[in-house]
Amino acid sequence: MFNGANELRVALDSVWVMVAACLVFFMQAGFAMVEAGFTRSKNTGNIVMKNLMDFAASSLIYWVLGFALMYGAGNSVIGWKGFALSDSFSHLGLDLPLPLFLFFQTVFAGTAATIVSGAMAERTKFTSYLIYSAVISALIYPVAGRWIWGGGWLSELGFIDFAGSTVVHSVGGWASLAGVMVLGPRIGKYETDGSPRIMHGHNMLAAALGVFILWFGWFGFNPGSTLAADGEAIGHVAITTNLAAATGALGAMFFCLLLTGKYDVAMTLNGVLAGMVGITAGTAAVSPLAAAIIGFLSGVIVVLAVNFFEKLRLDDAVGAISVHGVCGAFGTLAVGLFAEEGGLLTGGGWRLLGVQCLGVLAVFLWSFPLAYLLFRFIKSTVGLRVSAQEELEGLDLSEHGHSAYPEQFDYAQFLAWLKQNEQREEAL
Amino acid sequence: MFNGANELRVALDSVWVMVAACLVFFMQAGFAMVEAGFTRSKNTGNIVMKNLMDFAASSLIYWVLGFALMYGAGNSVIGWKGFALSDSFSHLGLDLPLPLFLFFQTVFAGTAATIVSGAMAERTKFTSYLIYSAVISALIYPVAGRWIWGGGWLSELGFIDFAGSTVVHSVGGWASLAGVMVLGPRIGKYETDGSPRIMHGHNMLAAALGVFILWFGWFGFNPGSTLAADGEAIGHVAITTNLAAATGALGAMFFCLLLTGKYDVAMTLNGVLAGMVGITAGTAAVSPLAAAIIGFLSGVIVVLAVNFFEKLRLDDAVGAISVHGVCGAFGTLAVGLFAEEGGLLTGGGWRLLGVQCLGVLAVFLWSFPLAYLLFRFIKSTVGLRVSAQEELEGLDLSEHGHSAYPEQFDYAQFLAWLKQNEQREEAL
Amino acid sequence: MFNGANELRVALDSVWVMVAACLVFFMQAGFAMVEAGFTRSKNTGNIVMKNLMDFAASSLIYWVLGFALMYGAGNSVIGWKGFALSDSFSHLGLDLPLPLFLFFQTVFAGTAATIVSGAMAERTKFTSYLIYSAVISALIYPVAGRWIWGGGWLSELGFIDFAGSTVVHSVGGWASLAGVMVLGPRIGKYETDGSPRIMHGHNMLAAALGVFILWFGWFGFNPGSTLAADGEAIGHVAITTNLAAATGALGAMFFCLLLTGKYDVAMTLNGVLAGMVGITAGTAAVSPLAAAIIGFLSGVIVVLAVNFFEKLRLDDAVGAISVHGVCGAFGTLAVGLFAEEGGLLTGGGWRLLGVQCLGVLAVFLWSFPLAYLLFRFIKSTVGLRVSAQEELEGLDLSEHGHSAYPEQFDYAQFLAWLKQNEQREEAL
Repeated sequence: MFNGANELRVALDSVWVMVAACLVFFMQAGFAMVEAGFTRSKNTGNIVMKNLMDFAASSLIYWVLGFALMYGAGNSVIGWKGFALSDSFSHLGLDLPLPLFLFFQTVFAGTAATIVSGAMAERTKFTSYLIYSAVISALIYPVAGRWIWGGGWLSELGFIDFAGSTVVHSVGGWASLAGVMVLGPRIGKYETDGSPRIMHGHNMLAAALGVFILWFGWFGFNPGSTLAADGEAIGHVAITTNLAAATGALGAMFFCLLLTGKYDVAMTLNGVLAGMVGITAGTAAVSPLAAAIIGFLSGVIVVLAVNFFEKLRLDDAVGAISVHGVCGAFGTLAVGLFAEEGGLLTGGGWRLLGVQCLGVLAVFLWSFPLAYLLFRFIKSTVGLRVSAQEELEGLDLSEHGHSAYPEQFDYAQFLAWLKQNEQREEAL
Repeated sequence: MFNGANELRVALDSVWVMVAACLVFFMQAGFAMVEAGFTRSKNTGNIVMKNLMDFAASSLIYWVLGFALMYGAGNSVIGWKGFALSDSFSHLGLDLPLPLFLFFQTVFAGTAATIVSGAMAERTKFTSYLIYSAVISALIYPVAGRWIWGGGWLSELGFIDFAGSTVVHSVGGWASLAGVMVLGPRIGKYETDGSPRIMHGHNMLAAALGVFILWFGWFGFNPGSTLAADGEAIGHVAITTNLAAATGALGAMFFCLLLTGKYDVAMTLNGVLAGMVGITAGTAAVSPLAAAIIGFLSGVIVVLAVNFFEKLRLDDAVGAISVHGVCGAFGTLAVGLFAEEGGLLTGGGWRLLGVQCLGVLAVFLWSFPLAYLLFRFIKSTVGLRVSAQEELEGLDLSEHGHSAYPEQFDYAQFLAWLKQNEQREEAL
Repeated sequence: MFNGANELRVALDSVWVMVAACLVFFMQAGFAMVEAGFTRSKNTGNIVMKNLMDFAASSLIYWVLGFALMYGAGNSVIGWKGFALSDSFSHLGLDLPLPLFLFFQTVFAGTAATIVSGAMAERTKFTSYLIYSAVISALIYPVAGRWIWGGGWLSELGFIDFAGSTVVHSVGGWASLAGVMVLGPRIGKYETDGSPRIMHGHNMLAAALGVFILWFGWFGFNPGSTLAADGEAIGHVAITTNLAAATGALGAMFFCLLLTGKYDVAMTLNGVLAGMVGITAGTAAVSPLAAAIIGFLSGVIVVLAVNFFEKLRLDDAVGAISVHGVCGAFGTLAVGLFAEEGGLLTGGGWRLLGVQCLGVLAVFLWSFPLAYLLFRFIKSTVGLRVSAQEELEGLDLSEHGHSAYPEQFDYAQFLAWLKQNEQREEAL
């Protein structure tokens, strides 16, 4: 089967990309655990269903539509051939087998799709969320991807987004922002005087597990984006990714300690994610030291951003806009500062930073208004939000028929039981 | 160490098979989480012990006995040489190092063994379960495996079961069916009028995590069954596996929505598993479109099957018979319909479908009666089921000495505490 | 990129080492789940923060300091060049790219660091724990690593510790012992008559998931320590690791059954870990049968050791001293007995056993006193232990500001609610 070095090389690249794709797939589990952990138990079944079904829908739709728009033959804005792999993709000049490349791209599309579920948690109609999922995987994400990874106009300008700070994370983050704006805050999130109330998630152990899974998966996301078994590059990317995650945690934790005097669990967990989102664009282009700085700053920025959006009455249940949108944008800009080749601080001048700004802006202007219009459209047709009563009872009951934790202690149920018990005792 | 291309190729295949084996191993965690999530908290320690110990027992016994029966020198029905690797396996013509091949096969054997624990959950004696585990790993699974993967009579006929819809999943499913028949339903599962009662699992978050882990692991299970670093094949199998999982989820979810008006969490989770079990036989032989169809149908079938068995008073606590037995059989037959080469619907005529039917039937006739006799034997000797009181209290207390969640709210305990509290207050 | 077989070989080795490093990284999630599961819910946020932050700190510090001490140019006791990769490491003669090697070593350092968090759980100050983390990653672990893996004096003597029974696990175990001695037992651990009280962990499902994750990760830890894509070696190490884990579980479970008449969940889980720690030193050097024996004995030993330390009033909340310290030492000595080449029982004489004893002793004498002094120093400066009130309330409230499970039933809170309810009813 392997006649020469080239075939072996392709086989080796294939194995590496396959492993990386599996790791990226597993990030879905991480998102589910983080989002469920950061929200209340009455919506846990709903959260995991959203995470599961946006990936399922995305897998199907990206294969049929999105992949062709992103990588099919076309121009520098959009592709229009190869729906459901129905045409050749030879213009990509891939050595990798096409199905494997599709698989790798599918798990990235699924990541972009799933980011929004957390931001809009605890009050979004399930059907409406499914519609949104379909559109982001079919259109919003693939077109942004075309521009940057599919040989489109931003890549022609030299825009650097190695593994998707902008393509994946900012797109998800800006869609989250649009969703949260159209939805409005959860009941009880703001006091009558307008000050925000902390709504603790129900399970920090689940959230921590989710962050560890995401960290693990990110070693597929970033190093896998080499798309080749290049040990030097893989090693460098692994080191910068890991350092940024570590300093993201440290940055968020110590900055919170400064603000509140406590080692905040949820913010530190978000700090890890912020650090990784931040380094994703420049992971191959910056030094380990720069990665540590980018991660640390991302950790600080995520704390500021969460507080900022909260004050604006933009109720993001898990901090997704801050983590993915803001730190994605920051990380993309940071490439313009720190890149070993072309970075402002490494003596490369202003050009790269300019291109990075342009790319961040362009992707915002593409994804945010489109997502906003989509959510407005959904709101005015099938409706975007459950009823107040459904929200108060929890979406698990109304949308899915039962609680995710049916044995959980329930105050009202207990009172009924207590009364029965008293009557029984009196009867004796 | 690497003198030429052939040695490099073997090394590359080894790395790929090792990674795949690790992913398949990790499915054990997935099964544990799904089964624990789908059952009540008073049996959680018991469930995880079963999952852990059937894999432990299976690892030991498959090495000593099962592997030789399945792959040792012998005839087309059974092998009889090479117990505990004591003989040569050169007749296999493997390029892969033998210990690595054994490891890959061990994690498959462990998967077959663990399927049953969910079906028989919440009332089976732990000791008896250990005995069953030993027998399935030592005998039932290896012999079926011999026929299909070990060069046995079914493989000679051209039976296609790429990664084990029949070898692994149906064997586990039919053993589950036998177990459930001999055991009888859980106390409280049926009303006095015979109608089934829904017994919700205690933790949908754990179940969802389990399904994500299984989905992740399945990318070792199916693509790894290439046993070689063939990028084209790996990519194709990854795509068909992923699409079937996705459409399995969609099929089960929408079919349930039609039946009940709700987006059912547990059924959708089982839909993912059903889709993956369904595609496992044909994953390398069918097109992506066929995979999407097989997955979708598996998702619908699993809902029908769960309801069917429930009506027959066959109380399968997690739906394992439906997921693994029924969808495993369906998926194996579907190869006869959809295979690119030889499928009935692709113009290949009836022969392959006939062979697939024969294989499904033969494996049923081997595994079900044997498992049934085994469980009857266990029942009449050491006993298969715990006492009614132990079942009501939960197996964690009786078999393992304490609850898996000792801080969990307990009604009786609370009442005692309340009384103490009242007395204390009165005393003041 | 690949001109010849040698470049392909390096690329393949790189992929394998990268995958293995990812698996080892994921063990962090396993430790977090095991330690949280084995302790009480009021300290869950604290546990996961320790696991998260010791890895974060360790990633940063090992890069800056530890790696140079362990592998930098220097003598047979310590290295002193190459801090933050600032110098050449060509003396190592590595084919692997340096950043990849650093990444692999970083996740090992993180493992050593995190072991201690479990032992000292439920009463250690978070700040103090961070200080300890920094020192073990910067100094204690790297120097022991130098001696054994970095070309130091123990490796020159022929000491065998393939993947770190001593380097990683014993170092973590002895540091745990020191920590527990300086800290003292948790409030409530001992009755007034001095007899130990069982303090059940709050979540056996989480603990079991953690063990499965660790088992999964260990397939990176041990087979990855080949540092090369040598299929034969990887397969052998995978088989011995898996068998030892399996027999460790069986050993601990049946030995506990003998002692208590129950199939103990927590001890069986620790048995898996004990078996894996035990085999880690000799995994490449002993036969599968010897691995099964070493695993089984480790499973028995861990039960004895846990009881032993408990009687000595050394309150190790998760059994880390026994699992990592004692079984790490036992496994290292067992190499001297069972090694195919040089083992006492395989006819190799006493020399290897002598060297193994010397290494175990030397590492104990390096790590234990140093850790002990460190903890004494911390105790007398910033303090090592939270106040009694903080300990009783749980560290999540005092150190992190809120509970990890804010919806969890709370007796006191419920009583307040009940009174309100009564008053409301009376008012009506």
